[in-house]
Amino acid sequence: MPASLARESEIDVLVVGAGPAGLMCANGLAKAGVNIRIIDQRPAKVAAGQADGIQPRTLEVLQSYGLAERLLREGNHMHMAAFYNPSPKGGIVRTGRAPDITAPTARYPFEVTLHQGAIEAIFLDSLASMGVTVGRPIIPTSIELDQNPVTLKDPQSHPIKAVLKHLDAPEGQSDTEVVYAKYLVGADGAHSWVRKSFGITMDGEQTDYIWGVVDMVPDTDLPDIRNKCAIHSDNGSCMVIPREGDMIRLYIQLADADVLDPRTRRVDKARVTPQRLLDVAKKSFKPFRIETSGEIDWWTLYIIGQRVASKFSVHERVFIAGDACHTHSPKAGQGMNASMNDAHNLIWKLTQVLRGWADMSLLKTYEFERRKYAQDLIAFDKKFSALFSGKPRTDDNEDGVSHEEFVEAFQTFGAFTSGIGIHYPPSAIVDPTHQAAARNLVVGQRMLPHVFVRAADAHPVELHDLLPADARFKLLVFTGAPGAAQLARVRALAEDMARPGGALGAHARALDVVAVSAGTKDEVDYTDVPAVFRPHWSRVLVDDTDVVGRTGGGGYEAYGIGLAGALVVVRPDGYVGLVVPFEHHREVDRYFASFMRAP
Amino acid sequence: MPASLARESEIDVLVVGAGPAGLMCANGLAKAGVNIRIIDQRPAKVAAGQADGIQPRTLEVLQSYGLAERLLREGNHMHMAAFYNPSPKGGIVRTGRAPDITAPTARYPFEVTLHQGAIEAIFLDSLASMGVTVGRPIIPTSIELDQNPVTLKDPQSHPIKAVLKHLDAPEGQSDTEVVYAKYLVGADGAHSWVRKSFGITMDGEQTDYIWGVVDMVPDTDLPDIRNKCAIHSDNGSCMVIPREGDMIRLYIQLADADVLDPRTRRVDKARVTPQRLLDVAKKSFKPFRIETSGEIDWWTLYIIGQRVASKFSVHERVFIAGDACHTHSPKAGQGMNASMNDAHNLIWKLTQVLRGWADMSLLKTYEFERRKYAQDLIAFDKKFSALFSGKPRTDDNEDGVSHEEFVEAFQTFGAFTSGIGIHYPPSAIVDPTHQAAARNLVVGQRMLPHVFVRAADAHPVELHDLLPADARFKLLVFTGAPGAAQLARVRALAEDMARPGGALGAHARALDVVAVSAGTKDEVDYTDVPAVFRPHWSRVLVDDTDVVGRTGGGGYEAYGIGLAGALVVVRPDGYVGLVVPFEHHREVDRYFASFMRAP
Repeated sequence: MPASLARESEIDVLVVGAGPAGLMCANGLAKAGVNIRIIDQRPAKVAAGQADGIQPRTLEVLQSYGLAERLLREGNHMHMAAFYNPSPKGGIVRTGRAPDITAPTARYPFEVTLHQGAIEAIFLDSLASMGVTVGRPIIPTSIELDQNPVTLKDPQSHPIKAVLKHLDAPEGQSDTEVVYAKYLVGADGAHSWVRKSFGITMDGEQTDYIWGVVDMVPDTDLPDIRNKCAIHSDNGSCMVIPREGDMIRLYIQLADADVLDPRTRRVDKARVTPQRLLDVAKKSFKPFRIETSGEIDWWTLYIIGQRVASKFSVHERVFIAGDACHTHSPKAGQGMNASMNDAHNLIWKLTQVLRGWADMSLLKTYEFERRKYAQDLIAFDKKFSALFSGKPRTDDNEDGVSHEEFVEAFQTFGAFTSGIGIHYPPSAIVDPTHQAAARNLVVGQRMLPHVFVRAADAHPVELHDLLPADARFKLLVFTGAPGAAQLARVRALAEDMARPGGALGAHARALDVVAVSAGTKDEVDYTDVPAVFRPHWSRVLVDDTDVVGRTGGGGYEAYGIGLAGALVVVRPDGYVGLVVPFEHHREVDRYFASFMRAP
Repeated sequence: MPASLARESEIDVLVVGAGPAGLMCANGLAKAGVNIRIIDQRPAKVAAGQADGIQPRTLEVLQSYGLAERLLREGNHMHMAAFYNPSPKGGIVRTGRAPDITAPTARYPFEVTLHQGAIEAIFLDSLASMGVTVGRPIIPTSIELDQNPVTLKDPQSHPIKAVLKHLDAPEGQSDTEVVYAKYLVGADGAHSWVRKSFGITMDGEQTDYIWGVVDMVPDTDLPDIRNKCAIHSDNGSCMVIPREGDMIRLYIQLADADVLDPRTRRVDKARVTPQRLLDVAKKSFKPFRIETSGEIDWWTLYIIGQRVASKFSVHERVFIAGDACHTHSPKAGQGMNASMNDAHNLIWKLTQVLRGWADMSLLKTYEFERRKYAQDLIAFDKKFSALFSGKPRTDDNEDGVSHEEFVEAFQTFGAFTSGIGIHYPPSAIVDPTHQAAARNLVVGQRMLPHVFVRAADAHPVELHDLLPADARFKLLVFTGAPGAAQLARVRALAEDMARPGGALGAHARALDVVAVSAGTKDEVDYTDVPAVFRPHWSRVLVDDTDVVGRTGGGGYEAYGIGLAGALVVVRPDGYVGLVVPFEHHREVDRYFASFMRAP
């Protein structure tokens, strides 16, 4: 059938692929009211296995979309890691335990593990509640981008023409449709068709490490079976990841001979069975028992590939995200997290451009911020994989990896593996010039969570809960010490910022405000704060404990803000974009003017 | 139509009345698998207004049924109280703020306010998920209790015959049915038909205090409008209760002339309008403004009545609960709480008798425990109402209530108004003989909440979350110090308690076990605890902080338990029934033998 006879439609954004990156992207855009389509080639969502670890920062991000609660309830929380190494008596022995996550500022200081199907279900239900379903099984068969500069310059043009094929179209009905989109997100996995069709190359290489993965309910006497275990034995390495319910995942290091076709030197899944993988694990576990108390839920084999795409965007109209632009080892639990955070970085930028709030130049920061991060991730992954796949140090093997070496790497990389340490470099939206105004709110890093109490009713609130991912910037006005002199400064500040050319005058639609006083719940009245700094009684906070002293207090100190106050601009994705002292408050106007469009 | 032609059925428990007491009772019994019916004379649930304050202890109780989460999400949390008194300059002035709740051990140290319809909806949805709906509009027209001692002695007999009338039966269909029930709960309010039909009298009297109540969204400059405010002015007393969303409730003291019919001396609602009530409030508020920013959501008038029923049960077959057995002033926020807690006390006792676990004598403890509590409640209410309705102390009125006097009463009664201080006296199910074994776990009071971490995975857990209201007793085995000597004692204890005649041997079906070690998360393995003390890996706890040191630790000290360990029996309703040191562990067997039936 000629394409000219196919159904045609216009949309804002076409998302190709309904894995973690695609679902995150579609959900965030739909929540912001963007007109989207999301398609996937698979006829149904993932049922078991696959990626399954959600890191502390990703939990914070999901919370900002209102999606964390269910994940926290359904998933397993992994707090502790245990390290097992060869015992002088033979077999393995526990050499220590340590926190799984070393990110002291994390709001959720643990990883959540849950099978990918359950995680995807959270997104699918959220999408369904907004009337969006994943179109499947559907593949794009061609994508054309109109490169006319005039077209590309108009943020509301539809320069993308995608031909989609419905794989399950009934006999006699057209299986083809044409979609014209303003933007396209290729979240179609490691073998991304979108990436390939635009000729974007992957830089990097494949390692020689081959691992088997088994999901099951264990029958074991290992006392750390509910902790993350890094087991280095003379019979190979093994990792235990506790999962929802009583399930665990085992990562099992394999020898080439176990899995490679001797002729082609390629992995041959037919050479292995899950029972054989478990037999390898049993040797590493000795003297502890490991059996399955039931069926093997899921299993696979993989070779670690460590690659980053050469670019993440074509003319800021076609973007790639997730595994389509970076692949790495699953054991550090990075894959799904990096994918979701790619989408998180892109969602608000696309939304603001589509709403006509921001200039198209904002979209350039996606590749700038996320490609740098992906490269750091690969560099980290190389070190970690080498350590983990390496032989343990023993008397016979003095070049091996020692327990101390491994634990040190584990802890050093804590901020990285938790996602908390992500630091975007300076750009139009990351301006660290006045960093000193809030010493510990590192510009380019995510806003530090902290519990304050509301001035109006002494209700403790996590500041993060006032920073939802609603595509708006947040202006945090730290009003400083209570008292008449400082209040006068705050009033003057409010007046100037609310003038027609001021940030609150010019960009009110894109800017939400929270005020935070350094006073106590006994002395501060929410009515003290100028009206432009308190859109609602619930948005005035004090830096004090709750009435029983269980939580809150010390926020100014934790943030490194003095009693003279400060202004903090938090990006819609929760990253600190700007901090300034009161006297430089017009820097806020300048910050927004550099990439926002006047209403 | 003669009753003999009516539909007939047999059930376990008939609950009359679907207010807070009846819904709580029906939900708890249905959750336990008891075959119930619940009926109400009203055609639909309450839509607005009515009772609306849930206290800290009631929150803990609702949590034990899995119902707190939604209430906490939908309701307003009231943390702070503010006190306003006459100013020397005229009008009122704030004389101080204080925590609304003075119950340092409360898991939820605040009150939740939400309109009664929303609270009832939580129960109705829970019941619906179990296939139970409230039959309405239905009234009982006669209830007969077969007083034959042989019948009454058989816990499975159906001595109650209730004739029910369906008020909305379609023309031509029978409006009558007959229900034979094993037990009946009359939760049919202050004018209880069940109470009257068994000739149970109410003891007590009516006061002269008349109050108006208005629910609305305020427009005001009072800085404490989101706190509970006790306003004493020369123009009368007023109380502000913040509610869900931006709503508040005002309690407004009225003069007799405002509301009484001068001839009959009875309250005449026709003499008052909500606008007139608001006009009275405006005078008390001066110099602050108070208007409504919209409609009046709900309003009423009431005179405080303070009465307790002379008995709460007829032959332990018919029980009355809630307003049917006690009425008091709404302002201390007691009514709905006392009602729900009556039901909570009764649910597990009925369940255990119906399951054949406990002897019928257990049912006598319902009146014993709850009537005593109701009497204490009335005594408290009298004092508090007098203080609150009294004139403020001023230079002209030296006999008035001073701010200090009021705040002191407010704080002193904190443990009472929070519900946390409820203390059931000694009985078969409250045995304080060995109190010294756990000094701070007061036998007869509710188990103290505390955060421990799980030995298997260092996950922090609130011990209350392991004490669900599932009709089972909980045996908490505080295993004491880690180390070989104490472990040997624990093993010997386990062996003896699991012998056929021991508590764990004889009453395993009615007894759930949790083990709590005094060791740290680094040194304790969950596999160290004998298998009979750990039905699952998740049920071994250690008294330590979580991995980031934010919560947990100090539990043994908080509970007053030494490193030699102790055994604690928590009743199914969360109250401490028994504490004993290891050497008296056979007291546990004796405790259960005194009211439990051998399987």
